[in-house]
Amino acid sequence: MTRTLIADLNSHLNEEVVVKGWVERIRELSSVTFLILRDRTGRVQAAAEPGLVSRLKLSTESVVELRGRVKPEPRSKMGFEVAVSTIGVLSAAGPLPININGPTLNVPLELVLDNRVLTLRHATINPIFRIQAALAQGFQSFLIREGFTQVFTPKIVASGTEGGTELFSVQYFDEKAYLCQSPQFYKQMLVGAGFERVFEVGHVYRAEKHATSRHLNEYVSLDLEMGFIENEHDVMDLENRLLRFMFEYVGERCEGELKSLDVVLPVVPVIPKVPLLEALELLEREFGKTHEGRDLDPEGERLLSKYVYDTTGSEFVFVTDYPWEKRPMYTMPKGRDATRSFDLLFRGLEITTGGQRIHSYDLLVENMLRKGLEPGQFSSYLNAFALGMPPHGGLAIGLERLTAQIAGLINVREASLFPRDRHRLTP
Amino acid sequence: MTRTLIADLNSHLNEEVVVKGWVERIRELSSVTFLILRDRTGRVQAAAEPGLVSRLKLSTESVVELRGRVKPEPRSKMGFEVAVSTIGVLSAAGPLPININGPTLNVPLELVLDNRVLTLRHATINPIFRIQAALAQGFQSFLIREGFTQVFTPKIVASGTEGGTELFSVQYFDEKAYLCQSPQFYKQMLVGAGFERVFEVGHVYRAEKHATSRHLNEYVSLDLEMGFIENEHDVMDLENRLLRFMFEYVGERCEGELKSLDVVLPVVPVIPKVPLLEALELLEREFGKTHEGRDLDPEGERLLSKYVYDTTGSEFVFVTDYPWEKRPMYTMPKGRDATRSFDLLFRGLEITTGGQRIHSYDLLVENMLRKGLEPGQFSSYLNAFALGMPPHGGLAIGLERLTAQIAGLINVREASLFPRDRHRLTP
Repeated sequence: MTRTLIADLNSHLNEEVVVKGWVERIRELSSVTFLILRDRTGRVQAAAEPGLVSRLKLSTESVVELRGRVKPEPRSKMGFEVAVSTIGVLSAAGPLPININGPTLNVPLELVLDNRVLTLRHATINPIFRIQAALAQGFQSFLIREGFTQVFTPKIVASGTEGGTELFSVQYFDEKAYLCQSPQFYKQMLVGAGFERVFEVGHVYRAEKHATSRHLNEYVSLDLEMGFIENEHDVMDLENRLLRFMFEYVGERCEGELKSLDVVLPVVPVIPKVPLLEALELLEREFGKTHEGRDLDPEGERLLSKYVYDTTGSEFVFVTDYPWEKRPMYTMPKGRDATRSFDLLFRGLEITTGGQRIHSYDLLVENMLRKGLEPGQFSSYLNAFALGMPPHGGLAIGLERLTAQIAGLINVREASLFPRDRHRLTP
Repeated sequence: MTRTLIADLNSHLNEEVVVKGWVERIRELSSVTFLILRDRTGRVQAAAEPGLVSRLKLSTESVVELRGRVKPEPRSKMGFEVAVSTIGVLSAAGPLPININGPTLNVPLELVLDNRVLTLRHATINPIFRIQAALAQGFQSFLIREGFTQVFTPKIVASGTEGGTELFSVQYFDEKAYLCQSPQFYKQMLVGAGFERVFEVGHVYRAEKHATSRHLNEYVSLDLEMGFIENEHDVMDLENRLLRFMFEYVGERCEGELKSLDVVLPVVPVIPKVPLLEALELLEREFGKTHEGRDLDPEGERLLSKYVYDTTGSEFVFVTDYPWEKRPMYTMPKGRDATRSFDLLFRGLEITTGGQRIHSYDLLVENMLRKGLEPGQFSSYLNAFALGMPPHGGLAIGLERLTAQIAGLINVREASLFPRDRHRLTP
């Protein structure tokens, strides 16, 4: 007899079914044993013979297979329950290190992560990653429709994209290599290789020593790069449409997950744009906030988001025209001091960095020199610019950050299945 | 005026258009300059004023923007050409290290890879990666429909999945870590974490010292794992349906690409299954081929594929029941000597390894010990088996190998945008 998923039980009323899953709760009465059974699609109450627990040595979180009839039961949440005729244990759970079967999981984050297989089963955690998967799928679906090609570029590289800091080193046979910080160079090269529009969903690595709630040392980057743009506004406009699509995609597929997390998806409006220098002035004027150098710090990002939300209703804001000294050498200059670049803030956190890139060989060399970099160190990248390179730009979205902001998580680690940080290499 | 893609020109006959792309060929006559312009969607002939090359210093592979009228022209391949009124160079190409504008690219593989940005533009190379992207998308689309969740698991790990060989080491702050050989442990843990069915599209790393035409040191693994199976045949049956879907998906979306490469997609039948020992007997009987130990070597794989094709018409064959000593410790035993495992051969090459996994804690410990492994070294994995683990199995498909077999490529490096091998870290 084939298995029926719990979500499909309502179409099998008064029928005999086989259900498989985890025993989430056990309540023994003198005349009956009630179980809450959980599978990937939901939870259902099952009523079995009394004394079951001792007969089968049944423990919570064990995996069972039960056969029974789907019986109307007005007192149960779903309006029915499974009247069990036979039950077998497929895999017994031993003593559980933490209790995961309350409505909330009051456990410190480190313990949540140490016991990931168990905590991922919790109704407030599991949905985070279904939403994350839908975000990744929405990203891909939209871009394929827009003529982008999915690419897979190397993560073991000979040198860094930004000039050598924050890199993890790899022993690559007899050579020293590095883990890629960003597919930036490869995305650009592939635009020039004739694909014009490419995206990548893949890991990137930052040997950032400081543990903050916003950083991971390994994270998933949703990257795209597009050729034949006019300027950075084409990239922002694409992201605006992309995010709208992704949020609709999640909204349609993750209704239950959003409800479990008790969160509401934001509307994606025409996203306001504020040049960085104006943003800094605004923060000083409105909040008396000063900055070290010409950049937003985390508090500045939060205040600016708040101001934009209060004045426009948008939970998103593009900060544009970053100063030349704050952006990497491949960023297209705008005048002498600024660049055609942007960040996107969402609910107070930067989730995207993007912009137009330099496509002229000569300008790229000039910009490298002005940054104090040695063009010869970037030859395999630089060569591509002498072979016909369209004007282009792109962006990267941090998948865990985006997920965390949607789900209202305090720490980005909560949005990574198995996060890697300064002190964590397992599980 | 917005850009018109070359593939859309036929719906703009006698209209003024702007076309952008690379100048693939230039032919100067006394009265006219003919250009072949290429964008991501195709190629078109353009007719411009004479003397254009010297006036603009126009070189092949430069990126241009041209404005003109789409004019019926029976002598051109497409039945029309663009009569150019103005043309501007967006990015000039310098001298080209190799000529890429012939119908075939007679260049040694190392040179093809050294000049990847250029060679990827060639009509016999570019389509390989559009097909690859469609394969990856088809894989995801099918599995999402089947209730799988996409996951992203760490590639920096504390130890190897197979016990420590062929690992690249990473300096992870003050600790020594490794690049993941396979998401095997994480896939299984996530089945147990309640997702039941998961897939991952991501890089894996093998520090394989021997350069062969079948191996890459970094490759893309299409991984899946599914819970609540009866045995390994459930996994093979899923792969059978999965491959049928993926090939149909590619067939519908890559007609032009398949034609450019002059290849035909195979039909995916009900794939025959041959137990390994029978396969070895068969090879000895039919071809007089003997083997060292109980395993197929590359020649054995080719001969077996040929035999199955000749006798059944199938270009695929599952080889099942691998001996216990040939499979990793997590493989479900079948009797004392065999395992519930399989390989899938496609056109003479192994493209998948899979099977049922052990889901019992005690059996897993026993199997580790029998393999001479120390269970304590795998504790963060092993612990998951004491928390309620459904019976499960899964598989991995090598994306580059699958692509290479479809495209009829001799070396798997040809199916990687920027391959990493023993001697190659750039571009």
